[in-house]
Parts: sequence; C-alpha cells; structure tokens
Amino acid sequence: MAEIKLLGLDPGLRITGWGVLAVNGNRLRHIADGVVAVAASGTLADRLARLYRGLESVVETHMPDEVAVEETFVNRNAASTLKLGQARGVVMLVPALASLPVFEYSANLIKKSVVGTGHATKDQVAMMIRTLLPGARLERADAADALAVAVCHAHHRGALARRLLAEVSPRPGKIAAKVAG
Amino acid sequence: MAEIKLLGLDPGLRITGWGVLAVNGNRLRHIADGVVAVAASGTLADRLARLYRGLESVVETHMPDEVAVEETFVNRNAASTLKLGQARGVVMLVPALASLPVFEYSANLIKKSVVGTGHATKDQVAMMIRTLLPGARLERADAADALAVAVCHAHHRGALARRLLAEVSPRPGKIAAKVAG
Repeated sequence: MAEIKLLGLDPGLRITGWGVLAVNGNRLRHIADGVVAVAASGTLADRLARLYRGLESVVETHMPDEVAVEETFVNRNAASTLKLGQARGVVMLVPALASLPVFEYSANLIKKSVVGTGHATKDQVAMMIRTLLPGARLERADAADALAVAVCHAHHRGALARRLLAEVSPRPGKIAAKVAG
Repeated sequence: MAEIKLLGLDPGLRITGWGVLAVNGNRLRHIADGVVAVAASGTLADRLARLYRGLESVVETHMPDEVAVEETFVNRNAASTLKLGQARGVVMLVPALASLPVFEYSANLIKKSVVGTGHATKDQVAMMIRTLLPGARLERADAADALAVAVCHAHHRGALARRLLAEVSPRPGKIAAKVAG
C-alpha cells in the first residue's frame, strides 16, 4: 500500500499549528511540523490574508493527500469564538481550494486517539506525540496539537474508508482489509 | 473628485449579500447587488471554498476600490457564532487577498447611517436603500443589508480620511474639505 501524507491543523488567529506525517498501513512517520504565527498588528482582514498565505505555503511545500482540522471548542466567550471561527474558516479554505479532502475531529477524540483519554493535558499530548513520532520538533505546543490531529486522522481514516467501501461493495471485508493495508 | 466604487458585504455561510455602489462626493449611485448562495450540501470545507469562489467572482467583476463588511452579531448561541465566524473569515479574506482595504461596521451603526436609528427593522433598511439607490434589485434582504453596509461606509469614509489627513497635515480643515468633495 502506498504511503499517504497527512496534514494536521490546529487553527488560531495568532498561532495556527501544523504537522505533516506519513502513514503506511499502521506505521506513522514524522515529516515536519511548525506554526504559522500572525502578528496582532494590522486589520483583521490583513491578518487573515497573512494566515492564508502562510498556510498556502505549508500546503505547497508538503503537498499532503488529506487534511485534518481540529474542531473548535466553542464553550467560551462569544467574541473569542467569533475570532477563532474567522481564523478557522481561512484554515479550512486553504486545503479546500487545493481540492484536498478535509476532515474534522473533536478535541476529545483527538486526545483519546493519541493519549487514550479525552481529558489529557497539553503536556501529555506533546509527550505522546514525541513517543509516537520521534523527530517531531514541537517548538510550540500548537505544533504538537496539530500532529495529534494528524495522528487521530491516521487512526480513523481506515475506518472511514471501510465504511464508504462497505456501502458500495458486496464483499466489504476483503476490500476493507486491503484499504487498512 | 474621482468616483470611488464601494463593495458592501453581509456575510453568512448559506447566503452572503453583496452590493456595489459608486460614490462621488455626496452622490451615491447603485451599480449592482446580489447574493452568493451556497447550498448546505457537502463538507464545511467545500462550502467555504464555494463561498470563496463566488465572492472572488464578484470582486473580479466589479473591481471595487474599497470594501466594507458588517460586523457579526455574536449575541446568540456559540455554534451559530462559530459557523458565521468561519464564513466571515472567508468573506474578509477575498478582498484582503486582492489588496483592497477592508472596513468593518457594526449593525447598529449601519442602520443608524441608513435609516437614522440603530433599531431599524430589515424592512425599513430595504425601503430606505430603495429610496437612496434607485435601481437596486434587492431580490433578497441580504443584498439590501450589503448595500446598507456600503452606504454606511460611504458616509464614514470621508470622516476616516479627514482624521488620517488631520494627523499628517498642518491645515487639516482645508484638506478635509477637499477630501469630502
């Protein structure tokens, strides 16, 4: 089975974490991680444009096959939710305009996939990412979170594919085994 | 004084209203209005990409000089605020990537500029827009709201320019009069 490149994204207006890994069957390999940092100066529109260009360059550099984005946590004040929403719209747009499939995962499912519990701390996530993906730079916590999104998608994309194939195939078991590599 | 083209935008994930008008001194002239409607089918990323392409085509067709966007009302449930935020991020991004200046106005100020009171109803706004801008199509209320944003910006951009010039000029009064046309 061919290697697939996954890009994980953790959106924010000031700092958007990103992480790229390769998945081949059950094997994960770290490729790159970092953040797109946008200074708080200038108008909101300018900041969104800078975020867009930063992410566009990440996508052009790493050419992922699939993209996974953390679902935004909305249980905070409305002004913050709106800000984050604006950044998140731009973050999801970049891969969508490149015709890449974009998947969304809740923070709870991401933590559960990586650490084993939905209530893991940021430090636990980063520690686990270092264990799963030796070579991760993780200069910032946001990059660890982004790699965690990619790991979560790596775990779930097989199941997604199996479900889709089961709907079209008379022998889902056989084909599913192939997809799962 | 040269004619300036203003694009007003009223963002939404399903329906984004847009309206273009020309301003020359105190005179306003309707140019075009409409909506970018995005069907609720497909993933969020796909929908944001369709919204982006729809607005991009409006900007390319009408080539505005300045863009004004309605500030989003956040006093509702967090999930709606997030959705609207995502659409709004994309809506503001389109002119920003085209290097156009983007201004934001609160719904209250927009209504006050157009109708005279911040508590005007949607119908009152549409009626006033029809009076101010004969020729407006206004097939949908969202287009009237977008033209209202543009009208609001037309009223306030002179004051903005005066304030900016006052900061750099030893004779702000003289220059301000020129700017106001």
